[in-house]
Amino acid sequence: MNHLTSWSDLSTDVWDACLERALWHRQNSAWSDAAAHKALGLVFFNPSLRTRTSMDVAAAQLGAHAVTLTPGNGTWGLETRDGVTMDGLEAEHVTEAFGVLSRYVDALGVRTFATLTDHRADRADQAFRAAVAASTVPVVNLESARWHPCQELGDAATVTETLGETRRKKLVLHWAPHPKPLPRAVPNSAVMMAARLGMEVIVARPPGFGLDADVLELAKKEASRTGGSVTESADSAGALSGANVVYAKAWSGTSVYDDPDHEATQRASHADWRIDVAKMSRTDRAAFMHCLPVRRNVVVTDGVLEDDRAAHVLQAEYRLHAQKAILEWVWGLEGSGFSVQGSPAG
Amino acid sequence: MNHLTSWSDLSTDVWDACLERALWHRQNSAWSDAAAHKALGLVFFNPSLRTRTSMDVAAAQLGAHAVTLTPGNGTWGLETRDGVTMDGLEAEHVTEAFGVLSRYVDALGVRTFATLTDHRADRADQAFRAAVAASTVPVVNLESARWHPCQELGDAATVTETLGETRRKKLVLHWAPHPKPLPRAVPNSAVMMAARLGMEVIVARPPGFGLDADVLELAKKEASRTGGSVTESADSAGALSGANVVYAKAWSGTSVYDDPDHEATQRASHADWRIDVAKMSRTDRAAFMHCLPVRRNVVVTDGVLEDDRAAHVLQAEYRLHAQKAILEWVWGLEGSGFSVQGSPAG
Amino acid sequence: MNHLTSWSDLSTDVWDACLERALWHRQNSAWSDAAAHKALGLVFFNPSLRTRTSMDVAAAQLGAHAVTLTPGNGTWGLETRDGVTMDGLEAEHVTEAFGVLSRYVDALGVRTFATLTDHRADRADQAFRAAVAASTVPVVNLESARWHPCQELGDAATVTETLGETRRKKLVLHWAPHPKPLPRAVPNSAVMMAARLGMEVIVARPPGFGLDADVLELAKKEASRTGGSVTESADSAGALSGANVVYAKAWSGTSVYDDPDHEATQRASHADWRIDVAKMSRTDRAAFMHCLPVRRNVVVTDGVLEDDRAAHVLQAEYRLHAQKAILEWVWGLEGSGFSVQGSPAG
Repeated sequence: MNHLTSWSDLSTDVWDACLERALWHRQNSAWSDAAAHKALGLVFFNPSLRTRTSMDVAAAQLGAHAVTLTPGNGTWGLETRDGVTMDGLEAEHVTEAFGVLSRYVDALGVRTFATLTDHRADRADQAFRAAVAASTVPVVNLESARWHPCQELGDAATVTETLGETRRKKLVLHWAPHPKPLPRAVPNSAVMMAARLGMEVIVARPPGFGLDADVLELAKKEASRTGGSVTESADSAGALSGANVVYAKAWSGTSVYDDPDHEATQRASHADWRIDVAKMSRTDRAAFMHCLPVRRNVVVTDGVLEDDRAAHVLQAEYRLHAQKAILEWVWGLEGSGFSVQGSPAG
Repeated sequence: MNHLTSWSDLSTDVWDACLERALWHRQNSAWSDAAAHKALGLVFFNPSLRTRTSMDVAAAQLGAHAVTLTPGNGTWGLETRDGVTMDGLEAEHVTEAFGVLSRYVDALGVRTFATLTDHRADRADQAFRAAVAASTVPVVNLESARWHPCQELGDAATVTETLGETRRKKLVLHWAPHPKPLPRAVPNSAVMMAARLGMEVIVARPPGFGLDADVLELAKKEASRTGGSVTESADSAGALSGANVVYAKAWSGTSVYDDPDHEATQRASHADWRIDVAKMSRTDRAAFMHCLPVRRNVVVTDGVLEDDRAAHVLQAEYRLHAQKAILEWVWGLEGSGFSVQGSPAG
Repeated sequence: MNHLTSWSDLSTDVWDACLERALWHRQNSAWSDAAAHKALGLVFFNPSLRTRTSMDVAAAQLGAHAVTLTPGNGTWGLETRDGVTMDGLEAEHVTEAFGVLSRYVDALGVRTFATLTDHRADRADQAFRAAVAASTVPVVNLESARWHPCQELGDAATVTETLGETRRKKLVLHWAPHPKPLPRAVPNSAVMMAARLGMEVIVARPPGFGLDADVLELAKKEASRTGGSVTESADSAGALSGANVVYAKAWSGTSVYDDPDHEATQRASHADWRIDVAKMSRTDRAAFMHCLPVRRNVVVTDGVLEDDRAAHVLQAEYRLHAQKAILEWVWGLEGSGFSVQGSPAG
């Protein structure tokens, strides 16, 4: 079954075909009946604006019918752990919920953010994988604890359209300040995306804000295939020098699970990592990227967002085109002019 | 007008035709334009996962357009009592709300759970009947204080598919423990459903958890028509012996309105009424049924839910097929291959 | 671009054409494919029942696809002020949100009620105008701090259908008591609507509850064009004498921004402004209007709402027809039998 948990679980042929198709959809924005008589269930355990709107419209543009559910908000909360005695707040187990939803729809989209309190669960992408395990139809990850593959594909298309040739171009994934500790699904996916495009990737972040070692390992392995590179640096100015893309993102420090107070103090001490016009001037007229939502003048200043190199709205637009490509792949649509040889990785 | 408040208000011809049609829809799952250019309003005063998804998809599969509203959650609360001075929390009366919605849509679905605090209102199905009274289009009950007819029809189809011949087969409606007092719409509908199928029905529950006398009376009357029977028992083991179907359900004790603390204490004392593999082994390889959501290892153990005699997911699937049949009846759809002589009961 | 902020911003040709078309839609209620392959985003910063349902169904009846978003409820809150450092509760700025949504849909509808605490922001319709400024597709006002043009058009159609000839007929916009201070978008729009129809308009309200001077000025200017008139009065009985339409509405006192406690005390002292059968008997068998939701027996008694001169449900129905006309205008639909010469005012 064509689940999309993480692009790393799939053959690069799938990625290549979906990326090409996302670029095609932006040029050929159109409605069709390709997915007529298909229903899509969208389950948001966490809030969403872009993803729920772009997924709903993506389905509609393909002729499919989407239903959006927000557990805990008009629907009860769902238990995701196995074997527990459910005498707490959750009224239903993910096993029943997704088993049943699979009888109503032809694919599911699921959003389950990282807890940032349970390291083991987050590392294992436990909640999202429980939803996949319980489903008998394809499941698309709409941002889990670990990955945000819809964002990743849309971002790749944005970089490709913006830069043209991406190989050996320099992308800085630049940590940014934020009043709250945020999950790492987006930075994880961003570093993988850039590695997949053969870019020179620098993850610039203060000490104590490194990404997980296994993600960096996976990205380095991908870069070695594509001729790119992945390095880390705590030197913002050095990293930005000559950059072609600055991808800003706030994420939590490595101590968030063990010592959240220390993490908050550390995070607050790096307000100067905010992206401003001065920082952007060090780059090679870099495109500015951010996944949104973004807190203006905390993460990045108004001036950067209003510059004509800002690509954050194009990024968001590409979510629609990328998700149309993903739905076509998930449903193996015939006649969509889109084919993939040998779907799942070995 | 073809309202569906309770199957007991309708001719058995309607029930028979809808049941046959629900079974047909499962075998012929398909999209059509049968209800094209019709809109359906779904109003949930209480949370829902299965009902809102299956109703939305049922409408879509028939070519209709559904709109879901959740009063109090993106919409204000609604007053359901007559003649009151509305200076409290509710900003709108059900009379205006349903009068107006009737101008926008071609049928309404309404969910209003039992209050469990106002016995008179619950007994009279006051909130649901107020919505019906205010509506000038057909209204479908999506679970009221007294009845859950969509569940009832789906359950009948599930039992029919699972057992084949249902007459004289033994169905135990088995009370189960739960951390909260729950309404009785589902057990009320389950006992009626089984009586309508000509089954030997035993309502097994601890002392103090009997169903309402008038519901049992109605079920016995129905059983006398179909050649079935309806009895009550406080002996779980005896009831389960030789059963063909075990329908587990938690519901509140009879003292819930007068003495909720006593009810809670009583309820907590019957944790051993939980359905487990040992209990199921007393039966004649009974199918296990539950309306969902179900609290695992409180109401029923993992082992029972994972056994191949568990029919709870099929039950949920049949909600979709049953509701397609109900919408076809409500709208009197021509050319649906589905006809009913003499709709409302005398 | 065909934004609809306020009818006062547009040529009267647009108003006339939309009004005629709304009346036509009620007589020719029908589904079409006029807006096929168009998506409509509906963003509600405040609750809604009528508007969200009627807009969703209006879109569906035109063949378009609507997506409803409720920021703060399944989506994060949005910042509407410029230049702020976003370290508070709001996670996203309206600039990004509406910039992005404009990439997904072909028009947006936006509801942003008056704050009733920030006079400057409310007077400037700041939140709604920020959404318009950030959007690159047409935006329809679904009730802002200042105006409710969808209500206004539907109300004009209701008055026209009910009275036939509207010129020189007497409409009393009659203040009503309410437990909460309410915004003035509806009374502002009601007085403009009646002036536009050439009616003799009396705004009857207690001392301290006058409408904004600039709105009255605008309405008087409009009345001078149409041969109507606009006056204010604190004498309810005198105003109602001989009225053809009584439009009841609660709104906050003029002191709400400066001294909310005083406003509440004042408001509570005028409970006798409630519309009852005795008040209606002073009129010339006037039609009763209210925008809904209405608090029964606080704003108006049951007897008035149940009289056959009550037009409040027809008013609500006209929302659907009016909004179909508005969407047709917004999208400049060809072949809808609906054309407007010279859209925006000079």
